[in-house]
Amino acid sequence: MSARGMSSEGDASPRMSASRERLSRDIEAIAACSEADPGVGYSRPTFSEAWRKALDYVIAEAKAAGCAVRVDAAGNLHARPAGLGWETPAWLCGSHIDSVPTGGKYDGVVGVVAALEALRLRPDAPLELIVFAEEEGTTFGLGMLGSRAWAGTLSGTELAALHNRSGEDYLTAGAPHGVDPQRLAAERLRPAAYRGLIEVHVEQGASLWNGGIPVAVVTTINGRKQYLCVMTGAANHAGSTKMADRHDALAGAAEAVTALEALARGLDRESDHTVMTVGRLEVEPNALNVIPGRVTFVVDFRARTGEMLARGDTLLRDALARAAASRGLSLSVACTEELPAVPLDGAVCRRLREAAYRLGVRLPDAASGALHDAAILAPLLPTAMLFVASEGGISHNPAEASRIEDIELAARIVVEAVRQ
Amino acid sequence: MSARGMSSEGDASPRMSASRERLSRDIEAIAACSEADPGVGYSRPTFSEAWRKALDYVIAEAKAAGCAVRVDAAGNLHARPAGLGWETPAWLCGSHIDSVPTGGKYDGVVGVVAALEALRLRPDAPLELIVFAEEEGTTFGLGMLGSRAWAGTLSGTELAALHNRSGEDYLTAGAPHGVDPQRLAAERLRPAAYRGLIEVHVEQGASLWNGGIPVAVVTTINGRKQYLCVMTGAANHAGSTKMADRHDALAGAAEAVTALEALARGLDRESDHTVMTVGRLEVEPNALNVIPGRVTFVVDFRARTGEMLARGDTLLRDALARAAASRGLSLSVACTEELPAVPLDGAVCRRLREAAYRLGVRLPDAASGALHDAAILAPLLPTAMLFVASEGGISHNPAEASRIEDIELAARIVVEAVRQ
Repeated sequence: MSARGMSSEGDASPRMSASRERLSRDIEAIAACSEADPGVGYSRPTFSEAWRKALDYVIAEAKAAGCAVRVDAAGNLHARPAGLGWETPAWLCGSHIDSVPTGGKYDGVVGVVAALEALRLRPDAPLELIVFAEEEGTTFGLGMLGSRAWAGTLSGTELAALHNRSGEDYLTAGAPHGVDPQRLAAERLRPAAYRGLIEVHVEQGASLWNGGIPVAVVTTINGRKQYLCVMTGAANHAGSTKMADRHDALAGAAEAVTALEALARGLDRESDHTVMTVGRLEVEPNALNVIPGRVTFVVDFRARTGEMLARGDTLLRDALARAAASRGLSLSVACTEELPAVPLDGAVCRRLREAAYRLGVRLPDAASGALHDAAILAPLLPTAMLFVASEGGISHNPAEASRIEDIELAARIVVEAVRQ
Repeated sequence: MSARGMSSEGDASPRMSASRERLSRDIEAIAACSEADPGVGYSRPTFSEAWRKALDYVIAEAKAAGCAVRVDAAGNLHARPAGLGWETPAWLCGSHIDSVPTGGKYDGVVGVVAALEALRLRPDAPLELIVFAEEEGTTFGLGMLGSRAWAGTLSGTELAALHNRSGEDYLTAGAPHGVDPQRLAAERLRPAAYRGLIEVHVEQGASLWNGGIPVAVVTTINGRKQYLCVMTGAANHAGSTKMADRHDALAGAAEAVTALEALARGLDRESDHTVMTVGRLEVEPNALNVIPGRVTFVVDFRARTGEMLARGDTLLRDALARAAASRGLSLSVACTEELPAVPLDGAVCRRLREAAYRLGVRLPDAASGALHDAAILAPLLPTAMLFVASEGGISHNPAEASRIEDIELAARIVVEAVRQ
């Protein structure tokens, strides 16, 4: 059985074609709701007009599929087959429609339209579509606000302290869209109403695409540590200070960057999906004829187990210390964020694998390097994820793309998985 | 004969003490003319009130030493013993009093006060003090404006195109201080009126200080090449993009920075004073969870011979290309500045060595990594420089310092050198 077998088989089926047409139409309709100029990407900040238009589209489509719809006090949209009632234990399935600025068409959206299509394919499924509010974190400065508030790990007071670029806080900006701090506690997630959560998402990495895998089951969401690092040397004249007399903070930071790249490559060979990134780096005084006196940079380190996070932490600090010491630089390293690795639910993963098997598709395992709402709900509900291949691994970028037949396959696996 | 012999011997002499007192008083008086708040350094932009006050101090001291004073049409101050006349071939000696923002007390100033002290020590010397206007380049965006305009390598039209932060061009800002484009050609440097130029300057590097050398003779001013480099990869998600799938522009640039550091260290062992610096580097998008898609940086490369500049150019480009190629990055390298190495005049250097020898001091050779007004005049006049040791090699920094006895020694070498 080939991993791609399903898709090719599907090409011949008229029902498939209808699904693909609907999914394409959904994706294009949501993409049309954007603040950004056409051609530079898609921008849907949470609670913006563009975001609201996209949400209204999802609501209309859910209703057309026979669903009842409600918004909880945290701002998340829920839609269930009208006959099911809100209390019957059902499978939660969905993702988000907010985007990073000038992002792509697929991040988040794929999980929403896959759930929508699953409800269309089987209108009596014990399935609840969810659209989480503010997943990306680019609108209010912190990610997964809707799921955190619904799960009860973020309070009304904390939401009131988060502001968007217009200076409006989450509660004020969200009020016209159903956010209500008074009802937060009463409407908190009740695990008894759910059998589990299945979030479909684009991989945002190249592993599936490069491996010719349309869909994979995510068994772990990587843990993350972030470090704010400062190397301090001595700013001095670039012309008259001999190489041997320098304390060049950028040379030290540069050695650190390449050392961490090599370290992460090595660790990744031992434990797949170990990554280290220096994405942000600033040089002072940053003048072309002055040896850098100070460099500030952030290291982002992710791994799939707590053990690898602990080992990487030690090795990373050693590498930084070596790069600084060899040039007489002072070094400060502050761990600014620490999120544990989240193993997803074995039974839900198995359910997804078996569902795929019945559809004639082998579902390989994957780990998620990025965080998702699924990581927030995993401690409360049996949770798993399906990854859909991302073309070239590109994400948070207008060039982001996934195959419509792969998205359709994910929707069909969801339908099959919640059947029993 | 020890290099430090003179200074220790000098400690016992009352005449020495008077010189040191005068030099200290000069340095403090000029330092007191500053735009910057006390404690953060010394700021004297060219043609500012602080600069003017410092220039007026030099004029008053030169007159007190029996000098006639004039300002040329480019804005440079000249002072000669009144009895000498402006036409008698004399030795030019001086430097600058403009500063980088929040710089130190010694850069430029040492050359001016050494010449002033030489005129006090021997009021009938065939010696002309010069204060070059706008050496640093931080006020009008280009360095050595006074010497370039006086030498005729910069026209009035070109000076009119250079603006300070208030938007005033060099001619307008300089007019109250004697700058006059109409007289530029008539008052251009006439080599016949000079026997040569001796510029005293702080080393701005640590070689003399570390070697226990108070003063050295500069035989070469290094050539310089600057390169604007851009490495372009692919911005992507820092969590979900595996190490093997990355095209990290910062990792490439970091490898380049450390490779150039190693390359320059190697070349410096072959030819002293070869340096490579990446002083300016910018990352895009510079977000902590995004793999850098583009890094722009500037390489500053200096060496004492044209041959080393040519060899270094090839090796540097190879190193950049390797760092980019190993990560599938595209690379652009543009050489934005190319200044040849300037060998200083052998006869003037010998004259300075012999003068020092008569004073009981051995004068080792040095190369200047920084550019100076001496480099502009060297093609027109027999030129050499004396370097005074910089404490710890620190310059362009409030912590800049030199020993008063070393500055005094430089003044005495000048007096001795122009005797015959």
